[in-house]
Amino acid sequence: MNPQPLPAATQGPVHIVGTGLLGTSIGVALRRLGVEVTLEDSSPLALAVAVELSAGRPRTPDDAAPRLVVVAVPPEVTGQVVAQQLAEYPAASVTDVASVKAAVLDDLRKAGADLTRYVGSHPMAGRERGGPAAAMADLFVGRPWVIADSGQSSRTAVRTVRDLAIDVGATLVSMDPERHDAAVAVVSHLPQLVASLVAARLVEAPGGAVELAGQGLRDVTRIAGSDAMLWAAILAANAPQVASELRSIRDGLDDTLGALDAAASGNFGKAITGLHDVIVRGNAGVERIPGKHGGARTDWDVVTVLVTDSPGELGRLFTEVGRAGVNLEDVEIEHAGGKPVGLTSISVLRGSGPRLASALARAGWRILA
Amino acid sequence: MNPQPLPAATQGPVHIVGTGLLGTSIGVALRRLGVEVTLEDSSPLALAVAVELSAGRPRTPDDAAPRLVVVAVPPEVTGQVVAQQLAEYPAASVTDVASVKAAVLDDLRKAGADLTRYVGSHPMAGRERGGPAAAMADLFVGRPWVIADSGQSSRTAVRTVRDLAIDVGATLVSMDPERHDAAVAVVSHLPQLVASLVAARLVEAPGGAVELAGQGLRDVTRIAGSDAMLWAAILAANAPQVASELRSIRDGLDDTLGALDAAASGNFGKAITGLHDVIVRGNAGVERIPGKHGGARTDWDVVTVLVTDSPGELGRLFTEVGRAGVNLEDVEIEHAGGKPVGLTSISVLRGSGPRLASALARAGWRILA
Repeated sequence: MNPQPLPAATQGPVHIVGTGLLGTSIGVALRRLGVEVTLEDSSPLALAVAVELSAGRPRTPDDAAPRLVVVAVPPEVTGQVVAQQLAEYPAASVTDVASVKAAVLDDLRKAGADLTRYVGSHPMAGRERGGPAAAMADLFVGRPWVIADSGQSSRTAVRTVRDLAIDVGATLVSMDPERHDAAVAVVSHLPQLVASLVAARLVEAPGGAVELAGQGLRDVTRIAGSDAMLWAAILAANAPQVASELRSIRDGLDDTLGALDAAASGNFGKAITGLHDVIVRGNAGVERIPGKHGGARTDWDVVTVLVTDSPGELGRLFTEVGRAGVNLEDVEIEHAGGKPVGLTSISVLRGSGPRLASALARAGWRILA
Repeated sequence: MNPQPLPAATQGPVHIVGTGLLGTSIGVALRRLGVEVTLEDSSPLALAVAVELSAGRPRTPDDAAPRLVVVAVPPEVTGQVVAQQLAEYPAASVTDVASVKAAVLDDLRKAGADLTRYVGSHPMAGRERGGPAAAMADLFVGRPWVIADSGQSSRTAVRTVRDLAIDVGATLVSMDPERHDAAVAVVSHLPQLVASLVAARLVEAPGGAVELAGQGLRDVTRIAGSDAMLWAAILAANAPQVASELRSIRDGLDDTLGALDAAASGNFGKAITGLHDVIVRGNAGVERIPGKHGGARTDWDVVTVLVTDSPGELGRLFTEVGRAGVNLEDVEIEHAGGKPVGLTSISVLRGSGPRLASALARAGWRILA
């Protein structure tokens, strides 16, 4: 449930420009800590929703100048709005939450903005739904929040933005803008584009093909459902870094095609060697991902249970798991033909797996070796 | 839990060649239905494990000739072993379970085998772990089982293989070998290669990049952990179809690179149009996948709950869900920084979402709009 809020390090007033998902969520989190927050948005509707959700109140001419301005507008206008805010509040520190950082900094340099009071941010948090109505105070809890110091940012500005990130529950990560943009190109922008390109193949897939779709295709294409306008703006703003990732993937595709063509022309030795190499390099890469595909996996026991499609069966399973009195760390349900039927993997703290397995087996569940 | 087994339509003896995951699972399922099963494998160890798991008994010279032979050996030797079995048992129907079908048929034609008694199969089932020790009688329950009639298969052979698929609980799908191979190229082989190529980029990812990995990257690269030797053989055996999918992806990559280069050279109108189009085509493709990313989604209410990282919290959540007395249809837990903290989405039958949400809210959980 929810930890007791600590006293905020952030000192208001904080002014938030742009009351979409991120801006409104930051406002709600700060208000819950008692920080004074004012809001503005080009859409009166979005602003009204944010106010209704207690993200703050609309800014009025009589309000005191903000100590901190948070710019949470679409990436393509972020630089311009940050420059305006720096000029309008000459004593304020200003941050933004755009998911690209170098392009914003370039715009500020071109605008001759005061870079000492600007520190770029990228909170690595979001939801499938956007807009103020989807806002939540806990959106940033446990998530990385990148602080991208341009090198010219003042210590006051950096400390002010770090305090904001900590107050909303995020985990601080420091990266300069270029390294940040290279990092998100590979961990975020590349996967998005590849998921979209693979999903696009399904539009003209042969009849009956999608009925054979398994969990692998579902996982690879899940994020292909993303918002097109937002992603077009993000990708365009990080174009050089994303292009260099795509070129590397294209080189890998060409190597793979070489191996496949060798197979087609009967040279199976060359084909198998090349294809094996592609999969092995992928094995090595996926092991670098922190968490359950990397380190954490070794800290957990995984108990795999067969769940058939009878009504209420998942509920009964979790009731039994509760009775077993073990600490549930994770649950993964495999989907066959789009139904949650098949293998359900329950991760528990290392050592309590056998106890859970025997408890479930006694309760009549099929436990898999 | 487990439905009462129906009487088997399959008449033994059934001979299974290759006691890996699939062969052993078929044997265990048939034995549970009382069907006589004999086994052989080039590895005495694998054979001993299969016998220990009650998949059948080793075949002896005195055994009656089988009515059905199931060949469950690696794809690169499947054609040759099927041809041997057709010759050795002139009255038996023979099937295989290789994940490619046209290449097997070509090998049989070259070998001058009796194609009237052969019907190719592809059960769309598997586990991350392979080998006989991972076998389970329920591996095929609710999974598609492709029956690939060459056009020359006798009605007896087709009916015999259909009976096998139904007896082990699978759902029948009929496709000719070429259509099957084109279908798995797009829904299975392409996602595997793309996941591996994206994961491979992480090997040389900039310092700190993987620490920013979110659920999107985890989903896209999950299957990159697959077995390299098995996949090299599968991909080589379906080389022409996989190559044509990869060439389509490369065309899509080139279009995307064109849009990104337009952005880099300041032509944002062209860039945004092109990138928007890539994401929109992906949106359309992902909607074609049956199940929770397609149709079924509309039959469910989804209640999203914030789960923090305190011990036992998931267990408490599922206990409350059980108390609420609603039918759990699916659970998805979003992972932040590799920990199952953040948003847990619980799918229930349409209509019971509000009841679950208010029950959980009363119990102190944070429910997200």
